[in-house]
Amino acid sequence: MPSPLTYKDSGVSIAANTRWVDAIRACMTATYDPRVMNRHNAFAGLYRLDYDEQLFRRNYKKPVLVACADGVGTKVLLALKLGRLSTIGIDLVAMNVNDLITCGAEPLFFLDYLGVSELAPPRLLEVIEGIAAGCREAGCALLGGETAEMPDVYRNGDIDLAGFSVGVVEFDRVIDGRGIRRGDVLIGLPSSGIHSNGYTLVRKLIERGRCDLDAPFEGGPQSLGEVLLAPTRIYVKAAAAVLEAYARRRVVTAMAHITGGGLRENIARLLPKGVNAVIRRRAWKPHPVFDFLRKLGVTRGEMFKVFNMGIGFVFVVRPRFAAGVTRVLREAGEDPIRLGEINSGSGRVVLEA
Amino acid sequence: MPSPLTYKDSGVSIAANTRWVDAIRACMTATYDPRVMNRHNAFAGLYRLDYDEQLFRRNYKKPVLVACADGVGTKVLLALKLGRLSTIGIDLVAMNVNDLITCGAEPLFFLDYLGVSELAPPRLLEVIEGIAAGCREAGCALLGGETAEMPDVYRNGDIDLAGFSVGVVEFDRVIDGRGIRRGDVLIGLPSSGIHSNGYTLVRKLIERGRCDLDAPFEGGPQSLGEVLLAPTRIYVKAAAAVLEAYARRRVVTAMAHITGGGLRENIARLLPKGVNAVIRRRAWKPHPVFDFLRKLGVTRGEMFKVFNMGIGFVFVVRPRFAAGVTRVLREAGEDPIRLGEINSGSGRVVLEA
Repeated sequence: MPSPLTYKDSGVSIAANTRWVDAIRACMTATYDPRVMNRHNAFAGLYRLDYDEQLFRRNYKKPVLVACADGVGTKVLLALKLGRLSTIGIDLVAMNVNDLITCGAEPLFFLDYLGVSELAPPRLLEVIEGIAAGCREAGCALLGGETAEMPDVYRNGDIDLAGFSVGVVEFDRVIDGRGIRRGDVLIGLPSSGIHSNGYTLVRKLIERGRCDLDAPFEGGPQSLGEVLLAPTRIYVKAAAAVLEAYARRRVVTAMAHITGGGLRENIARLLPKGVNAVIRRRAWKPHPVFDFLRKLGVTRGEMFKVFNMGIGFVFVVRPRFAAGVTRVLREAGEDPIRLGEINSGSGRVVLEA
Repeated sequence: MPSPLTYKDSGVSIAANTRWVDAIRACMTATYDPRVMNRHNAFAGLYRLDYDEQLFRRNYKKPVLVACADGVGTKVLLALKLGRLSTIGIDLVAMNVNDLITCGAEPLFFLDYLGVSELAPPRLLEVIEGIAAGCREAGCALLGGETAEMPDVYRNGDIDLAGFSVGVVEFDRVIDGRGIRRGDVLIGLPSSGIHSNGYTLVRKLIERGRCDLDAPFEGGPQSLGEVLLAPTRIYVKAAAAVLEAYARRRVVTAMAHITGGGLRENIARLLPKGVNAVIRRRAWKPHPVFDFLRKLGVTRGEMFKVFNMGIGFVFVVRPRFAAGVTRVLREAGEDPIRLGEINSGSGRVVLEA
């Protein structure tokens, strides 16, 4: 009989995992509202869809559940390299809820998956704290999650994280771009920078250019590393403000979250046949990080294919409400930009100089 | 100006990703029912909760959404080593939906996250096909997902996969163990083998014991590798059969999915104070794979802490309905085992010889 091997000997400690689960519970409960029915130690998270009490009163007539899954790509490797894990969780929530709200949904809850080489609580707890902060900003509950300790997949302290969010929208309020018409106006909201796409390229450029991540970025108060790690903006409040201001009219015909593929692909995917979206590049001034990356050796065309170029979220609205939507967005603290219009065409996005 | 670098040069191809998304669409649509409202190219998946048409008619009075996230741990590394990726997706769905149904929920939809070193379509498509097969067996729609190509995180063709599932249960039908009483009977359903927990230990044992994964397992028709990769059973139909047979009575007081931590931890987490669960080990004969692993060098106590030991799912039911539940499970094609009873105690699980 060989000498006995325990699960712990093999690199996994159930006891450490139990302690970890307890540690993240405080993060989770800080995101709860009364609709959360979670019980300690349950196998799954529970969330009441309808709710009768005053403040969180909700009643859906024909609820459509909306769900998406996303990760943060290799932005996490940059965060690990810089030892700054506090905002990568915000990125994770943002990547999911910004997708979710494009159809008019209100986010309800979020779950995370963390793959790690080892349970290193202080560092990893920062990740969960960031996720919880993102959830609070998005108005959704961190309902559950899973942390998988897999030393043979994730090495040298590497981690990966994936997120999953669920929201709800009334059946007759679903927004999907089918209502886009010629003359509709495109209104963009600024991104905070690169957000969470294209980091495999960003990291290659930084490495090839031997850039100092700790040096001040263009003489400003932030280091290059901080600029590159700026958390993805969460557009939930902005979208909710617009939808609430026009609760009875069909004013917003589409919304787009600008991720990998840039403005072109992420708007084109919504366009009905027979129209183009015309965007004037001079309508806004991209965040300086994009010019910095371009100078490290990327063509302007490639930049627009990979990055958001300063616009993180786009509304397509009926022309007679464009000024009103802009005002609502300003009142919500945003800095909306009129990017262009919908014209006759063939389902393409045209970027004008 | 340095020579221009493209996103593709850096190791990520948006075009390949688009082809991949198209390739998995067929897998997804094979799991759809009329409640799925997904549109091509949308940012999120849409699912109608209530539905008025005949076959899929659903109307929830006080719907409680149920959600969980889980992965398959390092079982995926064994699957990669053996070049058999066709059932790891079933494991992924099983790990999630078996958790989901413990509170009485009906699974609605599933989303996956795949982290990969490169988009190698034929192999990875097997994974997605397995996920879709698992979804069909669980009666839920594969509503969305994300595949992240991260060559600097996942190396040498390694992958990781995570899953998220959502279900629904009526508020007054939530099952959470609070109704467990002295005298309740524990009924177990057999596992297919190791399911998806403890593979870091399994792999260490196999390696240390220099076991031949291609050799027939105990002279049977399956190789050791095949036995180790047997897909996790999905207990959705069995649980649904019981809940439907007793739709108006509170017959089932708890359900447990036996995962990491084994029978002891996964049943203990549900027990109210003041009761113990007594399980007689002789009530069933564990799958021979467990004795095989034990002989490679694991104590019997450790085996019960890490593995399901042949029982994948447990019902706790009112004593006067134990025979009826057993009959319903047999009619559903299961082989139910009376494991033991609930006694007075202190919230512990007692494994009797």
